[in-house]
Amino acid sequence: MESRFHQELEQLKMLILRMAVLTEKALRKAIQAFNERDTHLAEDVIRNDQEINMLEVAVDKQSLRLLALEQPMARDLRFIVGCMRIAVDLERVADQAVNVAERAEFLSTRPPLPPNAALQQLAETALDMLTNAIAAFVNENVDQAGEVCQMDDLADELNVTVLKGLMDYMVHEVPAVERSVQTIIASRCLERVADQATNIAESVVFVVRGVNIKHHCEQ
Amino acid sequence: MESRFHQELEQLKMLILRMAVLTEKALRKAIQAFNERDTHLAEDVIRNDQEINMLEVAVDKQSLRLLALEQPMARDLRFIVGCMRIAVDLERVADQAVNVAERAEFLSTRPPLPPNAALQQLAETALDMLTNAIAAFVNENVDQAGEVCQMDDLADELNVTVLKGLMDYMVHEVPAVERSVQTIIASRCLERVADQATNIAESVVFVVRGVNIKHHCEQ
Repeated sequence: MESRFHQELEQLKMLILRMAVLTEKALRKAIQAFNERDTHLAEDVIRNDQEINMLEVAVDKQSLRLLALEQPMARDLRFIVGCMRIAVDLERVADQAVNVAERAEFLSTRPPLPPNAALQQLAETALDMLTNAIAAFVNENVDQAGEVCQMDDLADELNVTVLKGLMDYMVHEVPAVERSVQTIIASRCLERVADQATNIAESVVFVVRGVNIKHHCEQ
Repeated sequence: MESRFHQELEQLKMLILRMAVLTEKALRKAIQAFNERDTHLAEDVIRNDQEINMLEVAVDKQSLRLLALEQPMARDLRFIVGCMRIAVDLERVADQAVNVAERAEFLSTRPPLPPNAALQQLAETALDMLTNAIAAFVNENVDQAGEVCQMDDLADELNVTVLKGLMDYMVHEVPAVERSVQTIIASRCLERVADQATNIAESVVFVVRGVNIKHHCEQ
């Protein structure tokens, strides 16, 4: 019984890892589609989202089964609850990737805006935070999780820089209003990815240490 | 033991209800602050957010305690897991209320934009959806939860109407670019509230019926 239970926990972990790999790939592709004005890649991200949704449902099902049948205690209980939370956040990251891909599709039909260093840095930061949050989960590494939380302020600042820069640009380049607003929306999506990566990192700390650092992460 | 367990479930429900009341109030006040350019009310929303955050932590703590100590089965298990999910969504609605309040503070320092009927309707729709999702939870009413899910498309459409209207407006009223973008951000926050109310409604269906309607809700 004990060993079957641990096999099932391992299966749950594999579901999360599969979801994490697909989500990271979706975000990476969405950013590339945005940068390279590649509509095929953007369509790819949108089409593949369904698989991530289905994995979220599978994680929920497996977690509930384990909670109901195995009556887990302490760390096993936290691991299952943590997996349910991480699945919700990964699914939301995937939704943001779809949203960025949709902006990429729209923007590829219009003349390009000037290069935007802050937006580039935000995209890299969000992707790094997601990658590191997943690695922290895999390695059960609380320090790595803490580093993710600390990067969230940078993501917020970069999003504000993008917003201000584009508002200023629109005032002088009126025909670029629509494109600029769509870019602002993409920037906010990336900033949300950073928030969701922070949530994942908080769940890792919860699983490993059993403490809730939500709402204190930034201190 | 049985009766203490049910008392503790009741306490968990009361925590969610307290959180729901405060969150609904925060959203209502944020919308009023936005409409009436009332910075005091906006500050009120921002200041009171901490209490909602603390309630989310309390819901988590109580839920985990019940999962660990009482080894609940079937519907009780779904109720506890449902409460954890609803707490996450309520806390995110409260964050959107803070975001709308921050836009209200900024916009009250600038000349007012023309009345925006779609934004008004979106605000009312989001608030209705939240109120009905909470009522569905209290009454364990699956039909009411289903109605909330069905309203989500309307919220999406209204947000698109606001976005298009303001992009068009900015092109002709260049000095209004900054205000218009801030209003677009407020509109997206309200649209997110509608999404989160939909999540809450999905959790209600999960608790009562034991079925996962995530990713199928709109059908």
